[in-house]
Amino acid sequence: MTLDETLADLMRGVADALPAGGLRARLEASAATGVPLTVKLGCDPSRPDLHLGHAVVLRKLRQFQDAGHRAVLIVGDFTATIGDPSGRSKTRPPLTPGEARANGQSYIDQAALVLDTAPDKLTVVHNGDWLGAMTFADVVRLASNVTVARMLERDDFQNRYRDGQPISLHEFLYPLAQGQDSVHLQADIELGGTDQTFNLLMGRALQEAAGQAPQVCLTLPILEGTDGVQKMSKSLGNAIALTEPANEMYGQLLSVSDALVPRYAELASSIPTPDLAAFAAHAAANPRDAKHDLALNIVAVYHGAAAAAEARAHFERTVIRKDEPDEMPEIALDGPTGLVDVIVRAGFAASNGEARRLVAGGGVRLGGEPVTDAQMVVDVAAGPVVLKVGKRRYARLVAG
Amino acid sequence: MTLDETLADLMRGVADALPAGGLRARLEASAATGVPLTVKLGCDPSRPDLHLGHAVVLRKLRQFQDAGHRAVLIVGDFTATIGDPSGRSKTRPPLTPGEARANGQSYIDQAALVLDTAPDKLTVVHNGDWLGAMTFADVVRLASNVTVARMLERDDFQNRYRDGQPISLHEFLYPLAQGQDSVHLQADIELGGTDQTFNLLMGRALQEAAGQAPQVCLTLPILEGTDGVQKMSKSLGNAIALTEPANEMYGQLLSVSDALVPRYAELASSIPTPDLAAFAAHAAANPRDAKHDLALNIVAVYHGAAAAAEARAHFERTVIRKDEPDEMPEIALDGPTGLVDVIVRAGFAASNGEARRLVAGGGVRLGGEPVTDAQMVVDVAAGPVVLKVGKRRYARLVAG
Repeated sequence: MTLDETLADLMRGVADALPAGGLRARLEASAATGVPLTVKLGCDPSRPDLHLGHAVVLRKLRQFQDAGHRAVLIVGDFTATIGDPSGRSKTRPPLTPGEARANGQSYIDQAALVLDTAPDKLTVVHNGDWLGAMTFADVVRLASNVTVARMLERDDFQNRYRDGQPISLHEFLYPLAQGQDSVHLQADIELGGTDQTFNLLMGRALQEAAGQAPQVCLTLPILEGTDGVQKMSKSLGNAIALTEPANEMYGQLLSVSDALVPRYAELASSIPTPDLAAFAAHAAANPRDAKHDLALNIVAVYHGAAAAAEARAHFERTVIRKDEPDEMPEIALDGPTGLVDVIVRAGFAASNGEARRLVAGGGVRLGGEPVTDAQMVVDVAAGPVVLKVGKRRYARLVAG
Repeated sequence: MTLDETLADLMRGVADALPAGGLRARLEASAATGVPLTVKLGCDPSRPDLHLGHAVVLRKLRQFQDAGHRAVLIVGDFTATIGDPSGRSKTRPPLTPGEARANGQSYIDQAALVLDTAPDKLTVVHNGDWLGAMTFADVVRLASNVTVARMLERDDFQNRYRDGQPISLHEFLYPLAQGQDSVHLQADIELGGTDQTFNLLMGRALQEAAGQAPQVCLTLPILEGTDGVQKMSKSLGNAIALTEPANEMYGQLLSVSDALVPRYAELASSIPTPDLAAFAAHAAANPRDAKHDLALNIVAVYHGAAAAAEARAHFERTVIRKDEPDEMPEIALDGPTGLVDVIVRAGFAASNGEARRLVAGGGVRLGGEPVTDAQMVVDVAAGPVVLKVGKRRYARLVAG
């Protein structure tokens, strides 16, 4: 790969790269010296369930690994163990150090579904190890590098201050802590969501104050959930977890709104960067097929190609049930009953012989699955089952 | 003394007492329990030369000691050793811990000119001892008790933010540190200048958050210097140092503007509180005499009554020079010259004998001092000297 190709890959989906041209300069320097770049990503161990939204930055980090650079995953246990001491935020209850380590491990385990975990490619650190050692005097020195006006430039702070909503002073200290992480690691690159832009730039400011070359900040968009409206979030019920079994993940991906398909392709799939434009055109022309292709690709990322193919086959079988009419006659069975008998009782065959021929001809399905054994006994003790004979005849078999 | 009398004494000169009625309640509780109040005063060891302006709060602290309470003098070595890490303030260069201790000791030595230093009456502590032990996490918890909007209410912060002047974030941390001192000491009362009101109230807020009864804040006015315009400050040249020798202090006090005499009486003298109104009337009717009385009182505070009386006598001798006319004849002496000869040459006596009689009669002064030795030789090599003979005849003796 040429440097231009690598750059195009690394810039794929990036919302903002600050400063402009910074990434190219770092890549060139790294190529010239042979020293890999240190690429930082912070993670919040108070949110232990990872989904495709979290994976956007993780996949970006993986791209850097694949390009030969060193990923550093910072478990933010420092703030997690403090929580929100003002008690104002319900999303930031303090964790015990043990909980923070356990959650952090869970995060790492899930991130390993995306990242290259070779020791020379991935370093996992806990910021409590250095931030926890800082004194009040250290914090004063750190805080001296930033102005209050600069802090109030952050969008949410600005809005809250203007609207008279309280901003607790400790909230000003968290961006400092995150910025100090960059100083400690001497990060070359920091990745984050677009909601992290301010914090990433704080890292630049503090590195500069510490006499370091300030990191390049790459922000990635916040991925919308399957509803296509809200950001992906477990609590909103629109999330696809990284640990979702293949079949479920496939089905959930098919529920993504048509308009989002090219965005998911760019941010969540392994479709090669040069092919994204063609895929977007395909999605515009044939959204249903494109969505299946997308689902196949993304499931393969997390479960492998074989499992993805099986998920697709599973879906194609079970989706048939979706063609079932809402209304259909019910046949009550008062115990295990021979299939042939059931077909006759449903009125789909005039005789047992005709019923047997229908089964042998492959025109009979139970619960969406083809049935070829005419000797089969039907048992509905576990719940109703739909009998389908030919293309259009349905009956619901229920316990009598 | 009744509690009302004590209260009147303790409220003497106080600019603000917050909350209203708080001091009376504390005094009553202390009287009821027999437990003395803890009265806190912080001092800045980066400014080691104390003057009458500093003494205003020190004298208030002394009044509390005299009323049976416990003074705690906090040497602010925590901030002094950090200084202003942003380098923006020239008045806050960092001190080494050794310098801070030495300056603090100098402050304490000078404060001892005002305070009762009996061990049960005065405790001296250094806030670096507890603030220095605080971690980043402790600071986050502390900061969670305060909002950014509250910080920006402080006059100087508000003005600077409005005017686009930078406020370094660490400046927000100093009031927290000072407030934490009150928590650490469980202070009942904190004293300070009116410029400290915000910081004193911060102590209340943090004590309340820590589950303590919040301290009563007493602020004292900032004393104007001898010019009567600017606040007293060594660098402005309008200060009267506590260590000034008695004669100098007496003279400097006489240079205080007439309008300020009642204010100095209230804030800097030991004139009894019930007598202040009468003294103010005296000052209005006879400013010159009142100023002498004031000077006598204040010099006695720092040097004792005998030294004060001697300073007054010294002044009365030397002040005669101030009655000298601006214009007077000059007599050039081309070397040491006999006094009698000088008197004759000045034309103040027709003969050596008459000159000798004038000297013997006590009517001759040189440089304001009476001369009784007719054999005296006058030498003006060191500078001009005024010769006075009788009540109205002057000559300036200069080198020829």
